[in-house]
Amino acid sequence: MKNTFGNAISLTIFGESHGPAVGAVLDGLAAGLPVDEEAIAAAMDRRRARGDGLSTARTEADAVEFLSGVYQGHTTGTAITMMIRNLNTRSGDYAKTADLLRPGHADYTAHAKYEGWQDARGGGHFSGRITAASVAAGALCEEVLKGLGIRVYTHIAACAGVEDAPLSSAAGLVLPEPEPGHFALLDPTREAAMQQAIRTAGSEGDSVGGILETIVTGLPAGVGEPWFDSVESELAHLMFAIPACKGVEFGAGFGFAKLRGSQANDPFTMREGRIVTATNRNGGVNGGITNGMPVVFRTVLKPTPSIYKEQHTVDYTTKQDAALQIHGRHDPCIVPRAAVVQNTLAAFGLLDLLTVRYGTLAQKHGLPERRAGEEGM
Amino acid sequence: MKNTFGNAISLTIFGESHGPAVGAVLDGLAAGLPVDEEAIAAAMDRRRARGDGLSTARTEADAVEFLSGVYQGHTTGTAITMMIRNLNTRSGDYAKTADLLRPGHADYTAHAKYEGWQDARGGGHFSGRITAASVAAGALCEEVLKGLGIRVYTHIAACAGVEDAPLSSAAGLVLPEPEPGHFALLDPTREAAMQQAIRTAGSEGDSVGGILETIVTGLPAGVGEPWFDSVESELAHLMFAIPACKGVEFGAGFGFAKLRGSQANDPFTMREGRIVTATNRNGGVNGGITNGMPVVFRTVLKPTPSIYKEQHTVDYTTKQDAALQIHGRHDPCIVPRAAVVQNTLAAFGLLDLLTVRYGTLAQKHGLPERRAGEEGM
Amino acid sequence: MKNTFGNAISLTIFGESHGPAVGAVLDGLAAGLPVDEEAIAAAMDRRRARGDGLSTARTEADAVEFLSGVYQGHTTGTAITMMIRNLNTRSGDYAKTADLLRPGHADYTAHAKYEGWQDARGGGHFSGRITAASVAAGALCEEVLKGLGIRVYTHIAACAGVEDAPLSSAAGLVLPEPEPGHFALLDPTREAAMQQAIRTAGSEGDSVGGILETIVTGLPAGVGEPWFDSVESELAHLMFAIPACKGVEFGAGFGFAKLRGSQANDPFTMREGRIVTATNRNGGVNGGITNGMPVVFRTVLKPTPSIYKEQHTVDYTTKQDAALQIHGRHDPCIVPRAAVVQNTLAAFGLLDLLTVRYGTLAQKHGLPERRAGEEGM
Amino acid sequence: MKNTFGNAISLTIFGESHGPAVGAVLDGLAAGLPVDEEAIAAAMDRRRARGDGLSTARTEADAVEFLSGVYQGHTTGTAITMMIRNLNTRSGDYAKTADLLRPGHADYTAHAKYEGWQDARGGGHFSGRITAASVAAGALCEEVLKGLGIRVYTHIAACAGVEDAPLSSAAGLVLPEPEPGHFALLDPTREAAMQQAIRTAGSEGDSVGGILETIVTGLPAGVGEPWFDSVESELAHLMFAIPACKGVEFGAGFGFAKLRGSQANDPFTMREGRIVTATNRNGGVNGGITNGMPVVFRTVLKPTPSIYKEQHTVDYTTKQDAALQIHGRHDPCIVPRAAVVQNTLAAFGLLDLLTVRYGTLAQKHGLPERRAGEEGM
Repeated sequence: MKNTFGNAISLTIFGESHGPAVGAVLDGLAAGLPVDEEAIAAAMDRRRARGDGLSTARTEADAVEFLSGVYQGHTTGTAITMMIRNLNTRSGDYAKTADLLRPGHADYTAHAKYEGWQDARGGGHFSGRITAASVAAGALCEEVLKGLGIRVYTHIAACAGVEDAPLSSAAGLVLPEPEPGHFALLDPTREAAMQQAIRTAGSEGDSVGGILETIVTGLPAGVGEPWFDSVESELAHLMFAIPACKGVEFGAGFGFAKLRGSQANDPFTMREGRIVTATNRNGGVNGGITNGMPVVFRTVLKPTPSIYKEQHTVDYTTKQDAALQIHGRHDPCIVPRAAVVQNTLAAFGLLDLLTVRYGTLAQKHGLPERRAGEEGM
Repeated sequence: MKNTFGNAISLTIFGESHGPAVGAVLDGLAAGLPVDEEAIAAAMDRRRARGDGLSTARTEADAVEFLSGVYQGHTTGTAITMMIRNLNTRSGDYAKTADLLRPGHADYTAHAKYEGWQDARGGGHFSGRITAASVAAGALCEEVLKGLGIRVYTHIAACAGVEDAPLSSAAGLVLPEPEPGHFALLDPTREAAMQQAIRTAGSEGDSVGGILETIVTGLPAGVGEPWFDSVESELAHLMFAIPACKGVEFGAGFGFAKLRGSQANDPFTMREGRIVTATNRNGGVNGGITNGMPVVFRTVLKPTPSIYKEQHTVDYTTKQDAALQIHGRHDPCIVPRAAVVQNTLAAFGLLDLLTVRYGTLAQKHGLPERRAGEEGM
Repeated sequence: MKNTFGNAISLTIFGESHGPAVGAVLDGLAAGLPVDEEAIAAAMDRRRARGDGLSTARTEADAVEFLSGVYQGHTTGTAITMMIRNLNTRSGDYAKTADLLRPGHADYTAHAKYEGWQDARGGGHFSGRITAASVAAGALCEEVLKGLGIRVYTHIAACAGVEDAPLSSAAGLVLPEPEPGHFALLDPTREAAMQQAIRTAGSEGDSVGGILETIVTGLPAGVGEPWFDSVESELAHLMFAIPACKGVEFGAGFGFAKLRGSQANDPFTMREGRIVTATNRNGGVNGGITNGMPVVFRTVLKPTPSIYKEQHTVDYTTKQDAALQIHGRHDPCIVPRAAVVQNTLAAFGLLDLLTVRYGTLAQKHGLPERRAGEEGM
Repeated sequence: MKNTFGNAISLTIFGESHGPAVGAVLDGLAAGLPVDEEAIAAAMDRRRARGDGLSTARTEADAVEFLSGVYQGHTTGTAITMMIRNLNTRSGDYAKTADLLRPGHADYTAHAKYEGWQDARGGGHFSGRITAASVAAGALCEEVLKGLGIRVYTHIAACAGVEDAPLSSAAGLVLPEPEPGHFALLDPTREAAMQQAIRTAGSEGDSVGGILETIVTGLPAGVGEPWFDSVESELAHLMFAIPACKGVEFGAGFGFAKLRGSQANDPFTMREGRIVTATNRNGGVNGGITNGMPVVFRTVLKPTPSIYKEQHTVDYTTKQDAALQIHGRHDPCIVPRAAVVQNTLAAFGLLDLLTVRYGTLAQKHGLPERRAGEEGM
């Protein structure tokens, strides 16, 4: 249903970049869950632009106002509405090029779909600004997961040609805490090189994309449904809602095309009385259902379409070819800011699938004890 | 909702590999659409195993019985139920290894989820057999799309290390008709090499995977919704319902990670009075919405997990490490058979999004005329 | 979604009166629930026509074939498909009056909606025959509820001018078991008079309707959602899917219009350490949520529209006024047969709401223990 | 999904009586529809309490702030969020009786469901205050229907023992416009008596309920779906979301129990070249689908549970019987204010069903021309 997604819990997002506000309605959470406004603010902060040459000069306080569903610091069990006002808008920048369709953007498709009635200012409903709403809602879901012993962590696997350390080097899968003000990297020493590569692209009037990798630990085996509500279908559905996301892969992903079955299969083995797999090429999912190993997936984000280099395009009104020179404020790379978007949307999706299986009350009272041999990793 | 998917139209699939039948309920089609049983049978035939060393020796007549919703060769407008009996089942083969968890399969996750009550014979509900149901339903959707001037074509972009011709070589995007009895390839001369590579893997007791690419032409601009019902979210949700699918990418896909914005953006240009893009790296989708260019996406399918090589695993009952030697009938590669599964699921998804925008009646009476400048390619 | 309903579990129904089969897909049940085929057959039997002058002469064996989701007498946790073949069809009876729109039937609205492509034989998709599918699925849900200590019972509150004993006379709310071959009545001594009144109407070429009342005991307090998924919204949605149902009321229902608040409110009181209400005028539901008292609701079913008296109508083809004389086989009253339809649909709806709160696994493993003061009645 | 409802369009409502705001997200509207803020304000005004002895002394400005989806006076095609701040809250009144469960209210069920975490102030999420959100959203839907030639009108059929003129006396079904500041009555001369009867009940510390009847004209035949998305199922689902609604009936409703088929059937007849029915006992719906006659349904609203008379109840904390004396501000009757709630929810539901059939674009560009013989009345 367009701006609403979910089975047992649902997320509705709304807003336009230069409208009064963006926001989210998160429905289906149990009553009595603590609402850690600081944790949510920290997530909002990781998404926020900084005006440091890496992200756009536009900064928003991004204060989350709870309109419903939270009382005395806890969920009430009803729909939770979070609103984030748009405070710092400069629509003038965009007016100059309103007729010139920006390549790689949704200008043309918005025209086709909304027949000219779209709020085009700042990208309108297609702006990355709307992800602020999903981050607020998803950050709350992430807190609920933490209470159930489930951790979700997203790092920048690659950006601007610089790669992070591979996941296998993450010692013992004790997932790092994101560091405020820093890129989400398994190997923090690579941040400087990555920042430099992004700045170089920006200084050349261009932009870059990258790959975000998410790891989820603590999930019990048996979550997700075969076919249409598989863990993969649910998470991919959400990930492709991230603007710029053009690909999603689980485990070995597109690398499977070059593997043989004997390499692709993860052998089962007993470890400390539990069934685990010796490798995790399937990314923690078999037949659409969690197998207790960490769920691992990657997305690719295309380079920011707003670049300062002159581009060829069409004037929508005159239907003439034209040259486009974009002004305004734009990130040369949104990958670092998108990490928290991916992380929180994943948290929402997994909480949804857990709730299908264990019911709303389990969000508050905990998952049932896992049976012997099925505790997962 | 688990085995049901869709917005304006819905697809419900059911069945187990060795149960009485598999089937599908397709709801939301307009009344009066011709039901071309031959076209559906041809699609079923493309999915079917052949016992030629490339696919399993199990063959099924795969006759589709319409239980409801079709009368005198046309849809009646009510739910269409298609049933395919399971006729050729040899459950004995599986009984021998019932306790030994097959790596890469859903044996363990089915245990965890269904607590031992699953019908494990032949993979049960996780068997590729269930895709017969989605092919039958999706083939009918594909016929409806054809009536609206929309073509969906899937080819084997790569399999067993052998690549098909790239899409750009498809002359003028007049999509080929699938040839009965042959691999879906843009360049048919590569079939022999691909078959040979698959046979080689099979003869070594191993299996291979590959990449399937789908191209859709004739879609008007303006279809799909931003955020949760984007064309990409809807199609990826469906593709990840294909067993073995571990990745989905649109347009340049994961290749975007190495491109700059100036390379990734598709410049708009006028061609014969219509707005088109000079390149199509975004795969026909901007902001989640069709832009009138062909929609292009790829999936990766992992190698068939059933291999004849001995594998390490665990005995679920005794919770002991064990060696597994699989017998029974198994494809060394399911990629060629999966092409029609991907094609028909894509047809379903696109018909769903079209119906959201244009209503049920438009399936029968046609899409409204496109406005000047928005006809797409 | 048209022929699918439900939140945590879903019911899809399909079929036409004279097509190959009717059936249902029931999805979302836990694995390992016993499937009591005799209990389902008994429910089917209560719905079945008998050729005794009270119901149509058409009788069907109504054997339920499980196509999926059941193995070795238990649910497997996957979608359960139940098919009932249509064996005894005499389409000739209807052909004679195909153009004459039958008053009170869906002939005209089917024409309008399906533009002439509907399968009109025997009422097609609008036939009460399709309720056989929902009875099969709902009877299984009723068995699951029984396993959780929840009983659903429907009696004929009034029919053909004859009333059953009022609910309050049901001693201690130990609900009776339906008696095979008999009307569902709290006071069995009234069956003869009710049968006679129905026969009288039939012998005069006319038909009668009535009121069905359902009582549900054993529900914990706290089930259902405020607003759109209230117990009342969910149950009414399902009840209005019963052909002929034109009204649904809870507790005192339309009688509330004549009560004052001091009469309408149910006073809370302690009884044996539990919070109960002294009266139950709200039918066990406050604010859309169960309060632990029995849920009580009534439906009204209009008289069967097929009557033998001559009626005024229109010839759809010639668009001329015309006289209609209906032949064929028709119940003078469907109320007694509809009792089991209502009962099983209610069971489905309540199992759905329970699963939202307690999760799929609770269907098998039981509801959590109720806290002191909230055990309900 | 709890606080979200709809198929082709969706309505999400949120808020608590004494929280920061109530609001609605309305998704699925076409782009370019005029947003008549005055019409919406007029609907809000009809719902608002007035402090005239008939409704509570609490008055709210009820200004609707559009947070998204509206730009330059028109819909943009994206999710429309409407927020109404709660300005005038006096929580102190309620604190005194927080432990004493108010009979007829959701106090106890909220405790059971939300385990004590609910925001109980002023009824919290169960307060009639939340209907302000649905009125705002539904009033916009009503404007869209008007643009398609469809009118929805709700009058107070009965209240406090005083009845309005019957619908049949409404001359030629030219529906009256609601008069600001007056009860919605077909016969305005009865308002004084109705007001007096309500005041009498209030002055005795008691409350009254009533019956609201809605009439919809201009609907084409063929709208709605058989079974689960019947016009009756959809509208009843929405009506039971009105707090206090305990019954819904269509056409002759519960009166059908006393009619024979020959009386209940509406004979078809030709009138001015169109197929109509001579009577409309089925309320414009056959087989769940509109037949082109006015859709007519009634709801019953129970008396306001908040009364000033002393009542017997239980102290939730001490689990002791207790006497309850309610203070605070309460309507002796909410029926007059609920008329606009019912009217606007009905408008939402019908626009949803129309969009399923005709698509989103038809909201803006109009329904297709009706075919000869199917124009309805």
